[in-house]
Order: sequence, then structure tokens, then C-alpha cells
Amino acid sequence: MAESKQFDNVTVVKQANVYFDGKVTSRTVVFEDGTKKTLGIMLPGDYEFGTDAIEIMEILAGDLKVQLPGSDAWIHIQGEGEFTVPANSKFKLQIATVTDYCCSYISE
Amino acid sequence: MAESKQFDNVTVVKQANVYFDGKVTSRTVVFEDGTKKTLGIMLPGDYEFGTDAIEIMEILAGDLKVQLPGSDAWIHIQGEGEFTVPANSKFKLQIATVTDYCCSYISE
Repeated sequence: MAESKQFDNVTVVKQANVYFDGKVTSRTVVFEDGTKKTLGIMLPGDYEFGTDAIEIMEILAGDLKVQLPGSDAWIHIQGEGEFTVPANSKFKLQIATVTDYCCSYISE
Repeated sequence: MAESKQFDNVTVVKQANVYFDGKVTSRTVVFEDGTKKTLGIMLPGDYEFGTDAIEIMEILAGDLKVQLPGSDAWIHIQGEGEFTVPANSKFKLQIATVTDYCCSYISE
């Protein structure tokens, strides 16, 4: 979790990404090497997401449970945490309190 | 409204700014000249904000009404729009649909 508190020399896409009637929103950040992250907010609710790329989800703040593909278990994260989602898969989230996240997309 | 679709060579603060239980959130973008903007999302609801600096609020998408300080009138913005809030003042917003905005802070 010893990540930087800010991203320097990046490009930010102005328009937000909006999902679930705005209960999940994010902004896209593009780095000098062409890699991409999104900085997002999830409000309380139950969500299912699909991903093409591998996703590394860093939780900056919040209280949530995540169910990763191929598992019946729910992982509980309070405060900070991180989990990785395999490419071409779906995962479920139960958001209990406003959750601030940074998602990195890893191309294979 | 002929603004750029992205901001290049900027710094983005990772942690979100969270207001009203997450119904209003934003990310801070710092430019090379030291000026600051926030990119934010407002969910439906009624809000009152105070500002120290002059704020130029560019609405990227949404449906809202704004009441500027010293006025009883409500200005209706659907889709894109812009309004300026004087320094050291308060203003009210009635957000009807998920609203995506870019706020510029002007130091005097």
C-alpha cells in the first residue's frame, strides 16, 4: 500500500465514466508509458462488473466485500486494501460505505 | 464550451474529495502553472456550497438548477453549461440527474 499520493505528468480525460446511475463513477488517467488507471467512487450498493484486462483494484478508503471469479467466498476490506481480478472475468462487489478506489489495467 | 477533452501534463491527487456522504465527489487536478481544477460528480439532491476563491463551474453533462449569491432566481442548465461564483460566497444547487462537472478556481 506504499503507493504515491499523486500521479505526476499524466493526462486526465475530462469526461467521467458513469455506471449504475452514477452510483459508480470514475476518471481515466493515462500515464507517459501509455498505461491507464481509473480513479473512482462507489456508493453503497451491490454491483457486478466485467473486465477484459487484468484489474488491480486498490481500495483507498471504504468498507466493502468482493467476490472474485471462481470463488464463493466474500473478502471483506475495511479502510485500505487491494485485490486482483483476472482478465475476461466478472466479479461482484457489496459496497457498505462510500468507497474510493484506484484501478490499474494490465494488458497481457 | 470549446474546451479540451483532456488535460495533459498534469498532476492528479489520488484521494477523492468527498462531500454529502459521497453524493458529491471530485478529484483535484493541478496544472503546470500551479492552478487547480476539480473534476467532479454530483448525484441528484439539493446542496449548498461555500467558496473562498472565484469558481468557474463548467457543466459537462447533467440537469440542474443553480441559485447564485444575491439572486432569488434559479438558472436551469440541461446538458452543457457554465456559471461563475464570486469569491467568499455561497451558492445553491438542485441536481436533477447525475451531473459531471469541471470546476476552475481563480485566485485574485
